[in-house]
Amino acid sequence: MVERKDALVVAQGGKVRALKEAKAEKTLVEVEVKALLELKSKLAALTGEGGEGKRSGSKGKLTLKTPKGTKDYNDKEMAIREHVFSTIIGVFKRHGAVTIDTPVFELKDILSGKYGEDSKLIYDLEDQGGEKCALRYDLTVPFARFLAMNGTTYQNMKRYHIAKVYRRDQPAMTKGRMREFYQCDFDIAGTYEPMVPDAEVLRIVVEVLTSLDIGSFVIKVNHRKILDGIFSVCGVPDTKIRPISSAVDKLDKLPWEDVKKEMVEEKGLEASVADKIGEYVKLKGGRDLLEKLQKDAILTGNTKAVEGLSDMSLLFTYLDTFKVTQHVSFDLSLARGLDYYTGIIYEAILSGGPAPVSVTEAISVKKSKGKEGEEAEEDANVGVGSISGGGRYDELVGMFAGAASGKKGGVKVPCVGLSIGVERIFSILLRRSRLEDIKANQSEVYVISVGDGLLKERMELCTELWEAGLKVGASPEEGRGMP
Amino acid sequence: MVERKDALVVAQGGKVRALKEAKAEKTLVEVEVKALLELKSKLAALTGEGGEGKRSGSKGKLTLKTPKGTKDYNDKEMAIREHVFSTIIGVFKRHGAVTIDTPVFELKDILSGKYGEDSKLIYDLEDQGGEKCALRYDLTVPFARFLAMNGTTYQNMKRYHIAKVYRRDQPAMTKGRMREFYQCDFDIAGTYEPMVPDAEVLRIVVEVLTSLDIGSFVIKVNHRKILDGIFSVCGVPDTKIRPISSAVDKLDKLPWEDVKKEMVEEKGLEASVADKIGEYVKLKGGRDLLEKLQKDAILTGNTKAVEGLSDMSLLFTYLDTFKVTQHVSFDLSLARGLDYYTGIIYEAILSGGPAPVSVTEAISVKKSKGKEGEEAEEDANVGVGSISGGGRYDELVGMFAGAASGKKGGVKVPCVGLSIGVERIFSILLRRSRLEDIKANQSEVYVISVGDGLLKERMELCTELWEAGLKVGASPEEGRGMP
Repeated sequence: MVERKDALVVAQGGKVRALKEAKAEKTLVEVEVKALLELKSKLAALTGEGGEGKRSGSKGKLTLKTPKGTKDYNDKEMAIREHVFSTIIGVFKRHGAVTIDTPVFELKDILSGKYGEDSKLIYDLEDQGGEKCALRYDLTVPFARFLAMNGTTYQNMKRYHIAKVYRRDQPAMTKGRMREFYQCDFDIAGTYEPMVPDAEVLRIVVEVLTSLDIGSFVIKVNHRKILDGIFSVCGVPDTKIRPISSAVDKLDKLPWEDVKKEMVEEKGLEASVADKIGEYVKLKGGRDLLEKLQKDAILTGNTKAVEGLSDMSLLFTYLDTFKVTQHVSFDLSLARGLDYYTGIIYEAILSGGPAPVSVTEAISVKKSKGKEGEEAEEDANVGVGSISGGGRYDELVGMFAGAASGKKGGVKVPCVGLSIGVERIFSILLRRSRLEDIKANQSEVYVISVGDGLLKERMELCTELWEAGLKVGASPEEGRGMP
Repeated sequence: MVERKDALVVAQGGKVRALKEAKAEKTLVEVEVKALLELKSKLAALTGEGGEGKRSGSKGKLTLKTPKGTKDYNDKEMAIREHVFSTIIGVFKRHGAVTIDTPVFELKDILSGKYGEDSKLIYDLEDQGGEKCALRYDLTVPFARFLAMNGTTYQNMKRYHIAKVYRRDQPAMTKGRMREFYQCDFDIAGTYEPMVPDAEVLRIVVEVLTSLDIGSFVIKVNHRKILDGIFSVCGVPDTKIRPISSAVDKLDKLPWEDVKKEMVEEKGLEASVADKIGEYVKLKGGRDLLEKLQKDAILTGNTKAVEGLSDMSLLFTYLDTFKVTQHVSFDLSLARGLDYYTGIIYEAILSGGPAPVSVTEAISVKKSKGKEGEEAEEDANVGVGSISGGGRYDELVGMFAGAASGKKGGVKVPCVGLSIGVERIFSILLRRSRLEDIKANQSEVYVISVGDGLLKERMELCTELWEAGLKVGASPEEGRGMP
């Protein structure tokens, strides 16, 4: 709905530019400019981004709006949201998951130092005496805090958590970047057969995306240890591995030349080292690629890489068993933003298949790095968007437990998890539906009468229907609808 | 950005060192050192990695806990919570309700001046530039704001909203008084046949409490216009009607003598007037009481009272039609705290019937006034607790619309609503269950093997079961469980 308006704005903007370029008559241009401004103001009203500030006018009138970067969800939008959630939860429960809930705000200390420079986006609560608190930034850190607090009780746990998180980012409402938005996480915590949970998480991504019917997709998979091994054997100094890794992470948006430039000019890597990396990170494939790397004498000289390759080999076996290999692409260019990953990492993207993803969608999708939505940069050239992401993080819980006990080697809970980009899925489905076709209430029966009167009889009938467990609708518009 | 600041720190550090090495004048060095410290503290603030924060203990250990007044809900608690919510939502949907969602924080201006002296309990967000926001205190004010914003689109609406609200109150966790807790509201907005929505709301309370099977209950009902009429004919000056009304509201906890004392000594009412009020407010009954009041020549001399009595008469007729009269007690002592009620008001209490309410529960239940949880005071002597409350508020939406438009007589949406005390219900059910009996996951099948091995076979079987839509459990404890 909003996006349709947005397309109108873009189109109108184009028209104005074309007229100006063609040096059209002044009044003609003015008419079109006025139309453009009107469209923009309608759009602002729709998205709640009215720029008029807190109180409009000088008379101290109250502005009826939601805070910047937030919105209300009406009954029809909620109907779609509930469909998305119940579909996803259905899959999670099929895999034996339980859910937990954590407070919407955490002690500030719990969140501090977990999000790097994005920490500035954290919403603080005002210090009204007492503890310093902040709204949660994601669901992973609260989950790790929960596990560290409940060490032995929840050593092994498959949990999902669907809840809102908060980021004081510059909102781009039309593009779906909000300050309040849902995250939808599923994680397997604890020690299981090696690589079995990792494969199951990928199977769950496939089940979720298939159930939601949002079009064809590919899951790119890589392994942090292989990536680090590659950097190592190519000659990247240890201190530069993470910065070089973030440069590689941009390969889905930038051509290799630009990424290389960043490595060499900004991060001070030797050009020859960068070139060696380039040979590796452009590789993608399936088991064939794995076999090729296993025969790479240089790479297999690196212990970490060997561990990673061995994990990937087991993963491919289990993906076959779980019948999801066809959705997976082993892609050495996938690096992901977050520091805490220690094993497999992956990211699912829509591959622009048969699902009716509109052009507007293709323009407005975001490239997300880290867990879904943790970082989001617009890129008008990207035709498909990341719709799920995740990976293995074996050290995060231990970090909390260690920081709390003041010594290393406290409770350690290895974890692997996924995050579904529900806001993006929600907006794709919303765009695809016609709002007038969405039935928000679930009424099975409407009780009305022809002509006036019969109120008591209608009420009696309703009572009977309620007692029979039926969903009875209202049609107050007619005045005769009940009740 | 952080890197840039960091570079500044390094540069400034170099400057200080250089000055020291050059044995520069002491005050000059001090100025530069101060600048360095400022830069460092800005950097720490930016990255949120300030070491100076509140860390408990001398060694900078992290405290693993949730903020005061909040808690995590583990998988078993969540299973009970989901049962309560889905039961309640089932009833709401039977009555044709839809749901909407609003942001967890609102512009501070929206909340200001709505909660009287309890406004001090509102959680403010820190002013980090931009709008002044605060966490929502209840769900009624955001709903009224939504209706006022969407005037014509949602003139008639049955909506429910189950979500967390926030109050910076002194928590009493063992008694269920939290700073973050759920409210569960259902409201009928718009113009319908007179008193039909009011009766339906009471029918819904009966359906919800019956479905939840938490024991026998009584719904006390009164009408603001009758109460105000009584105060008026007894001789209470108009300005004292609300204060006297709050005194009456305490009658379920205090004996009449104490309430009278408050009226006379604190609120300056004449003793004879108080005595007249006392004659009325001790009355309770059913239609018999209504008939008695209808014959009261003094009371029926008051226009407001007559309107209220006429509403009550219609209500009793409809309660019969809806077959819920047996649960209702017409109780003139019920006043309720909130100012915004304009018609019927009610409160459901557990009547200590056959349901297994434990002694602990009887002691810890709270007397709540206003909408459920809006005010809560402990009273160890009260054996039963308010479990639902609500009433008609015909002016709140218009107040918002009027404040926004700057003139009176904007959009007017009459509303009647209920609030279910889900936190209390949740804690009653939790106390009644044995935690070890609660099965948090919904697994229908467990795949295990006798003896070691067979991992691949177990995984294949799981895949088949998942594809058949079955919920497959995990038993990782055994090491042989899958996955």
